[in-house]
Amino acid sequence: MTSPQFLSDTARVDENAIQTLPGSRKIYVEGSRADIRVPFREISLSPTRTSGQDEENPSLLVYDTSGPYTDPNTKIDLRKGLTELRRHWIDARDDTECLDGPTSEYGRRRANDPMLARLRFELTRAPRRGKKDRNVTQLHYARQGIVTPEMEFIAIRENQRLQALGSDEVERILDQQHPGEGFGARLPEEITPEFVRDEVAAGRAIIPCNINHPESEPMIIGRNFLVKINGNLGNSAVSSSIEDEVDKMTWGIRWGADTIMDLSTGANIHETREWIIRNAPVPIGTVPIYQALEKVGGVAENLNWEIFRDTLIEQAEQGVDYFTIHAGVLLRYVPLTAERVTGIVSRGGSIMAKWCLYHHEESFLYTHFEDICEICKRYDVAFSLGDGLRPGSVADANDAAQFAELETLGELTKIAWKHDVQVMIEGPGHVPMHLIKENMDKQLECCDEAPFYTLGPLVTDIAPGYDHITSGIGAAMIGWYGCAMLCYVTPKEHLGLPNKDDVKTGIITYKIAAHAADLAKGHPAAQRRDNALSKARFEFRWEDQFNLGLDPDTAREYHDETLPKDSAKVAHFCSMCGPKFCSMKISHEVRDSFLNNGASLKDEARDNDLEGDVEAAMKGMEEQAVKFRREGAELYRKV
Amino acid sequence: MTSPQFLSDTARVDENAIQTLPGSRKIYVEGSRADIRVPFREISLSPTRTSGQDEENPSLLVYDTSGPYTDPNTKIDLRKGLTELRRHWIDARDDTECLDGPTSEYGRRRANDPMLARLRFELTRAPRRGKKDRNVTQLHYARQGIVTPEMEFIAIRENQRLQALGSDEVERILDQQHPGEGFGARLPEEITPEFVRDEVAAGRAIIPCNINHPESEPMIIGRNFLVKINGNLGNSAVSSSIEDEVDKMTWGIRWGADTIMDLSTGANIHETREWIIRNAPVPIGTVPIYQALEKVGGVAENLNWEIFRDTLIEQAEQGVDYFTIHAGVLLRYVPLTAERVTGIVSRGGSIMAKWCLYHHEESFLYTHFEDICEICKRYDVAFSLGDGLRPGSVADANDAAQFAELETLGELTKIAWKHDVQVMIEGPGHVPMHLIKENMDKQLECCDEAPFYTLGPLVTDIAPGYDHITSGIGAAMIGWYGCAMLCYVTPKEHLGLPNKDDVKTGIITYKIAAHAADLAKGHPAAQRRDNALSKARFEFRWEDQFNLGLDPDTAREYHDETLPKDSAKVAHFCSMCGPKFCSMKISHEVRDSFLNNGASLKDEARDNDLEGDVEAAMKGMEEQAVKFRREGAELYRKV
Repeated sequence: MTSPQFLSDTARVDENAIQTLPGSRKIYVEGSRADIRVPFREISLSPTRTSGQDEENPSLLVYDTSGPYTDPNTKIDLRKGLTELRRHWIDARDDTECLDGPTSEYGRRRANDPMLARLRFELTRAPRRGKKDRNVTQLHYARQGIVTPEMEFIAIRENQRLQALGSDEVERILDQQHPGEGFGARLPEEITPEFVRDEVAAGRAIIPCNINHPESEPMIIGRNFLVKINGNLGNSAVSSSIEDEVDKMTWGIRWGADTIMDLSTGANIHETREWIIRNAPVPIGTVPIYQALEKVGGVAENLNWEIFRDTLIEQAEQGVDYFTIHAGVLLRYVPLTAERVTGIVSRGGSIMAKWCLYHHEESFLYTHFEDICEICKRYDVAFSLGDGLRPGSVADANDAAQFAELETLGELTKIAWKHDVQVMIEGPGHVPMHLIKENMDKQLECCDEAPFYTLGPLVTDIAPGYDHITSGIGAAMIGWYGCAMLCYVTPKEHLGLPNKDDVKTGIITYKIAAHAADLAKGHPAAQRRDNALSKARFEFRWEDQFNLGLDPDTAREYHDETLPKDSAKVAHFCSMCGPKFCSMKISHEVRDSFLNNGASLKDEARDNDLEGDVEAAMKGMEEQAVKFRREGAELYRKV
Repeated sequence: MTSPQFLSDTARVDENAIQTLPGSRKIYVEGSRADIRVPFREISLSPTRTSGQDEENPSLLVYDTSGPYTDPNTKIDLRKGLTELRRHWIDARDDTECLDGPTSEYGRRRANDPMLARLRFELTRAPRRGKKDRNVTQLHYARQGIVTPEMEFIAIRENQRLQALGSDEVERILDQQHPGEGFGARLPEEITPEFVRDEVAAGRAIIPCNINHPESEPMIIGRNFLVKINGNLGNSAVSSSIEDEVDKMTWGIRWGADTIMDLSTGANIHETREWIIRNAPVPIGTVPIYQALEKVGGVAENLNWEIFRDTLIEQAEQGVDYFTIHAGVLLRYVPLTAERVTGIVSRGGSIMAKWCLYHHEESFLYTHFEDICEICKRYDVAFSLGDGLRPGSVADANDAAQFAELETLGELTKIAWKHDVQVMIEGPGHVPMHLIKENMDKQLECCDEAPFYTLGPLVTDIAPGYDHITSGIGAAMIGWYGCAMLCYVTPKEHLGLPNKDDVKTGIITYKIAAHAADLAKGHPAAQRRDNALSKARFEFRWEDQFNLGLDPDTAREYHDETLPKDSAKVAHFCSMCGPKFCSMKISHEVRDSFLNNGASLKDEARDNDLEGDVEAAMKGMEEQAVKFRREGAELYRKV
């Protein structure tokens, strides 16, 4: 598994993860101060060829999760980790202290274990913690009315520089987009830092940013912002190494993962996590109970609060940005799962259910929930309240166990908020399409609009090997209904540990779901990328079509499978229809005739009053017919 | 491209297409007469291992589109074609005559062209046609109150032998399924032949079955039946051969294509189609205007009624089961597309728009629509009224051009019905999620519940290379809303001609969408397969889990990537979580304790009254706790 040499000598970044994407360049938009530099990917487009002068096509800015990896001016060295983007912001708040080392018993043990020397990431800086009685969460700041640099960073990032285009252009862009159906989401035309602060203060959005993960680029999770996606990785006792998992992380963020969860349950969980966090420009989430269970040899009933508490502190001081805590699995809910087709399918949920049953007590996650809040507020670790009783099959969807736990998660949300600790809620699971909306509506109601973070849901159980698709369908729908972040599912779900290719497939599928949701909600300017790509497609700007897509490499590869020549990249057809059957090509010939016919017809066409169109059409048609007969001969000019 | 030897010597069936699927066998259910033999795939399952006696798991019958190819007792010879399943039914009706050869001028020319000798399928029998003044459509029979063998075949097929299980078992199965939301669909618990007749008579469903395609196994398309999917294939001037296209057909039906459309636009369209139809157990659809355009050298304006009429007869006498006819593209609608982002993206639509414009006349498809009906009724070719003005981008969705055409398709539907010709309506295209339902609702309203047959819709434009997924999301949703058949989209959409792998990926994706729709609509017993697979998953019956899935080969391959050993096929974990973190394994330990605790708790658990559960749980819990402490040691028995 892990080569003994890994860390100190051989750690190398995946070369594929540091190439800039085709037709793209990394740019930074500066905020109100020089150290707020918000990264974007700018996709430059070729001009539209016309009979007269070519028309320029404006480049398109897209949200960029890949961090410094795609910045040619940055030298990536996994052994050093990323630069501390947020360090000065954290310092300036002067509410944290640097510790002289890990305060968790386990953290110290690992740090001092000579056997781990070559596995260990050489972290030179000390961990940080909020000063005594200080609350260092973004929620706390927001409620104090403080707009943090993180919030300003996010506002710029979410706007994708729309306003820089000028109000006329913005109006034009919004005119070219369908009004959405947001089911109560509030999507302002411009996201201001104050709006970010207000959403965080209200608990409707969270900014996962542990003070010990200053390398991360601030991002926000809430239904009044762009829908986000999470990619899971992590080794298991059966498979994978630290190298593999770091590669999956860099590969995942390249394709669009907004956050990464390290779900490692195998060897060297502590060291694997350190390597991932130090090199991650996105927030990292974990399920601490996994490591706690490892610490007690996998015997659930031997878990206890002390071990769990030490694990939380250990991970908080490494920089984990959000914790999945299955505190909603109550003793009295366990019987509700006895008759299920697939029982309890959440690892954390099943572990805690077993603990509760064995000890005949409520779990320490529930009884010590306020103690956990006390820890989270001193590092700004956000809660991701786990759905330990989520349905693992369509049959178990929306049952008593699931919704009983959801109500408890609602109570816990209020407790977290009482401590100014950020919180989001995890959701199912396997749910048929017609039962998805009930999940979203109940969550908003039970949890007072705290962000929802769902796994899929998978809309059918019958396609192992394709569960990125069964779940992508449900993810797009629940994203539309108001889910803030979609946890991806890979083709390997239910079958095995995903590899790098599976990670990419899962990420692209979920980018599709998240974007489809943004479109349906009517997120301002979300349709801009669709319009730009479709215009490129209609104008046979093949390279632009590839580059505007979520995966330019695959699009180009598929096209070139049958037409590899460069000349085909300007051809007015592809191998699907061939030259004579390209509807778009023919459509151009049809359209040109109108455009040459002046504005009158176009104005009529814009009008939905058919009667008007009929007359207009009839009026203009005779000239068209003549014109076409005249030009008929040239119409099929060879490409 | 095509090897000159192909037909007469070298035509061979794709060996991969004739293997029986793992754990499955072909069975036939006999109807009221010996020659009604309805094919199914029976998936046999292994027993559930228990501490006591093993419990048998009943085998599952699934709808089977693969025809004789997966019947080990049938010898497939592409050069001879399939047996004439429906021949006697057609004979018995005594309303058709055998012609002494093709009556179309083009058909005769191809038949007599010595250059084509080696390309030609050697069809020994003569084409058939309805006798003078006789209408041979299933719609005509249905309206006469006649229940045809085709209708009985379909009733048995749609029921999937549910009733054979006995009313108690049926009740149990339906109890284990969520009530659906059908948006007005009427889904009886048992599909009777009379129900089939009634739905066809009402125009709410069609049975595409040309009298010249007696090889086909009857199937039905209507929203009160299982949602169906279509797979497109066909060569282009740029790529592919007859062999390739026949292989795509046999591969497509293996994975679940209910119908196949041959969209060939390249060389030897006539001969390619003959090979496909003679070997297809599913209905074959075409877009006759493509071949007509080939006949006039690709110059749209040179098309005319005579050439088109001859093409219809040529194809009807080969056995095409449904024609896509873009008769709704009216002259006055063309201006409505002038301002679109992607103009006209339907091949047929753009061809006809150009023709109309050039001649300044309504198209011959529209002016001769009743003449087309006269042809269709003598062969029982169904209409698939083409949406020539469908949106090719999210921006163009639900616009004036699209809905204007839909209204015209509604008028044409009534004309077809006047002639007792079966008709379904084609739909978009590219549509964001929140605008999909409007498409379904308008179609039902404009076309009086004639079946809707949609391409996707694609819910975003930004993922070339993944449009099977962007469209699978929309397909699942519109299938739920009432769409009767979903036309697949492959990963190559917009980029190139799909190959065999793309066909399979498209088919599996659409089987997922169709089944998800059946579940959401609450189709009787649709959830049975999900429940069986999830039970197998929960019981670690890995082989059963693979075999119950839509693609057993891929599921097994993914699993074996990390755990290839046979022992892993019974292991209580996979490489994703490893032995100690398998939630299902832990869940069993939790559940066992309840099951051993007698019925009381289970009854409580079934009850949604939490208070009751709480008491029950508390009551039973102490014993549980004791029991667990006692058995704690064995709980982690090694696998």
